[in-house]
Amino acid sequence: MGGIAVVRLSGPDAFAIADKIWQGTPLSNASSHTAHLGIITDSDGDMLDQAVATVFAENRSFTGEPTVEFSVHGSRWIQRRVVERLIEAGASAAGAGEFTQRAFLNGRLDLAQAEAVADMIAASSKASQRLAATQMKGNFSRRLNQLRDSMIDIASLLELELDFSEEDVEFADRSRLLEMTRSTRDEIARLADSFHAGRALKEGVAVVIAGKPNAGKSTLLNHLLQDDKAIVSDIAGTTRDIIEDTTEINGILFRFIDTAGIRESDDHIERIGVDRARQALTKADILLWLTDPNDPAELPTDIPEGLPTLILETKADCNEPAVQAKSAGASEQAKSVEAAMQAKSVKASKQAKSVEASIPTSSSNPEKHLEIIKISAKTGFGFPILLKRLTEIAESGTDTTTELIVTNARHYESLMRAIESLKRVEQSLTEGLPADLTAQDLREAIHHLGTITGAITPADLLQTIFSRFCIGK
Amino acid sequence: MGGIAVVRLSGPDAFAIADKIWQGTPLSNASSHTAHLGIITDSDGDMLDQAVATVFAENRSFTGEPTVEFSVHGSRWIQRRVVERLIEAGASAAGAGEFTQRAFLNGRLDLAQAEAVADMIAASSKASQRLAATQMKGNFSRRLNQLRDSMIDIASLLELELDFSEEDVEFADRSRLLEMTRSTRDEIARLADSFHAGRALKEGVAVVIAGKPNAGKSTLLNHLLQDDKAIVSDIAGTTRDIIEDTTEINGILFRFIDTAGIRESDDHIERIGVDRARQALTKADILLWLTDPNDPAELPTDIPEGLPTLILETKADCNEPAVQAKSAGASEQAKSVEAAMQAKSVKASKQAKSVEASIPTSSSNPEKHLEIIKISAKTGFGFPILLKRLTEIAESGTDTTTELIVTNARHYESLMRAIESLKRVEQSLTEGLPADLTAQDLREAIHHLGTITGAITPADLLQTIFSRFCIGK
Repeated sequence: MGGIAVVRLSGPDAFAIADKIWQGTPLSNASSHTAHLGIITDSDGDMLDQAVATVFAENRSFTGEPTVEFSVHGSRWIQRRVVERLIEAGASAAGAGEFTQRAFLNGRLDLAQAEAVADMIAASSKASQRLAATQMKGNFSRRLNQLRDSMIDIASLLELELDFSEEDVEFADRSRLLEMTRSTRDEIARLADSFHAGRALKEGVAVVIAGKPNAGKSTLLNHLLQDDKAIVSDIAGTTRDIIEDTTEINGILFRFIDTAGIRESDDHIERIGVDRARQALTKADILLWLTDPNDPAELPTDIPEGLPTLILETKADCNEPAVQAKSAGASEQAKSVEAAMQAKSVKASKQAKSVEASIPTSSSNPEKHLEIIKISAKTGFGFPILLKRLTEIAESGTDTTTELIVTNARHYESLMRAIESLKRVEQSLTEGLPADLTAQDLREAIHHLGTITGAITPADLLQTIFSRFCIGK
Repeated sequence: MGGIAVVRLSGPDAFAIADKIWQGTPLSNASSHTAHLGIITDSDGDMLDQAVATVFAENRSFTGEPTVEFSVHGSRWIQRRVVERLIEAGASAAGAGEFTQRAFLNGRLDLAQAEAVADMIAASSKASQRLAATQMKGNFSRRLNQLRDSMIDIASLLELELDFSEEDVEFADRSRLLEMTRSTRDEIARLADSFHAGRALKEGVAVVIAGKPNAGKSTLLNHLLQDDKAIVSDIAGTTRDIIEDTTEINGILFRFIDTAGIRESDDHIERIGVDRARQALTKADILLWLTDPNDPAELPTDIPEGLPTLILETKADCNEPAVQAKSAGASEQAKSVEAAMQAKSVKASKQAKSVEASIPTSSSNPEKHLEIIKISAKTGFGFPILLKRLTEIAESGTDTTTELIVTNARHYESLMRAIESLKRVEQSLTEGLPADLTAQDLREAIHHLGTITGAITPADLLQTIFSRFCIGK
């Protein structure tokens, strides 16, 4: 409970309704963007609360409608009562996301921007805030509109041809159209590709910590979480046996998933075959495999293809003090081991142990290596490089400072549908199919991009989008 | 998490500091009570959030200092980051209650009013809100100042006498002084007397529900809580075995304490001798004793003296349909049973059952009666009168609409000390003791009243008072 709570009233009659429960300067006569101290009255005419009312005129408010924001004392009882009083005076209770929906309907922001408002409210790290801010500023929408415009250009050329179809003319240069379509599709594919990383950055990069019991998993987890003094919390709703904790490292939210306790039976130590661990792995963005050099464990064979994996040799303080001194530099310590194929196809862990060659982290094909990092939770040895590599992997393929990144599953789906339509357009153009078929596919692609910014918005889609907002926004 | 969070910045440099993280109309140049849309920047110069900043000039703000209130998106991460940015720009984090403390130190409100702000934020019912509102408006302080003034009048008469003490004159009419003192003490005593009811109204009137197992305690509780559609919640920190729930009835917050489950052993059914139940009873404001006429239970002998008690005969639907029809009127149904002495001194429950005479609720000495109310949780029979009686008992001795009511333990203590001092003054005056002794006691009484409004405020007292506020107020 805060000291102050804000109750927002928006709509054509906002000022008249507000004045019914207000003692002070009449809000109907107040200038836009002015704040007024006054009294909110209860139904018996007595003071319900002393409050500050801030007035926003039509077309100058968040929703675009006349708006009053009451700053009242933070008591939940008072908040409820003020809302009840406003309802008695003729207002109705706002649904989830209703203010933002009105802002969209009144043309104050497009759909992608409106969705960014919800992301902003939910932002839990620097990365997620930055992604929401970029989208809220409309950069993403502008790029989509540019892409949409170039598709409309292609379409207009094709449509022109259709108008003269009886004369069997070909106005558009087919190979040029094909090139334009391909370049547009490439661009959309790049946006779609950013979705996996983008969603991880928004919701937290899932890092699964696995390894033999006593390899030091819990110690590592505690160290990671304490080290950054960030918000650390249990995530509700996770399986009790799997401990999940979040922390912000270098501006990125990580969800560390400790799979400890799921391999109690000794028979199963060598494999991650247990259902829950496998399930955790399918959702993982990064795997940390802990192994104690004195009691080495093989990397399981059933790791999902392409899952970035770091092998952590724990207890580096106990038996290798020389390495500790030698490995102060990052490139020195982070050893990557060349593995000819994916972890899935061979017993990669055996190779990791047998190959001694040290390859710097900055290798051009990092996904084909198995990196080994020596760490010691006791001395903190190895942690700087571990945190650096986690951040690099989380951001790989995306540059959050300059690039546009897709974080929204709805947007991703629309982009993928647009790509499918464009592929059909390319096929039609290549095979010289009739222009009307091609134009139809192109129109579909344009439609799919349009649903992202709200140029095309079925009512039920709006319903779905705004219902995930919180009340009051 | 709300859609909007308010970050408040107050102090002489507020505008200059705010402008360091602000892109938009410079807040230093803005007029008081104006709101401005702009951007809060992060340390990298990028947008941290789009926000509305409202500006309050010196002497026109809550604290009396230049103040900026940023309305930012509700994300906890963004809130934290905005505060961090302001600290980087030269601000310091506000302590609990620091804004209200500054308001007090700058003479914007007196101490009793400042404490009422905390009560307002914590208000959880109509009654607690009304008590806080009255105190915030300064009615309580005004009455205290009047009382203080009349004591100062008495003191000045006495002091005048002291100035001429060598001449052995008596300027003041002693019997008139005595009368003035007595009338002041009576008034203070009336205020102090309101404390028990006042605290109950503020924190919730504690109603202990007790009786034999299967007497219908849980059913009653559920009925009471559902009936009023009010905030219902478990109270954290209570003993697991005692279920506590709060609900608002007729504007008053009640805390119903179900002692079910503490008397599992059959040997102990007849007495509330179990420690926990007894402990609950010592904190109770009202006791509801449930008894099933088919399986009657005696009222325990160790009920605290003077505890208002209602005996509820449950299952009134099953065996007495006639009564149900007959008893629609309140005075008809609420039977009070004359008991010659306190519940404590005799086995009152035996009397309650043996005496058949019906005495109306409005009897002039309700504390000498044991009221019986017949109820049926099944049909709802008897509940209107039960709720009415609970409200009446909670408000007994206080009129929350017109009277001043003491709700604060600190105020109560000061009033009691003032009363003690005034008693000594009366004794001195009666016994004709020297004027300087009398004047000393009078000064003490004046001092104690002064601590309530803050006319006299030791630093450590301020510390204690404001530390119970929430951060941000």
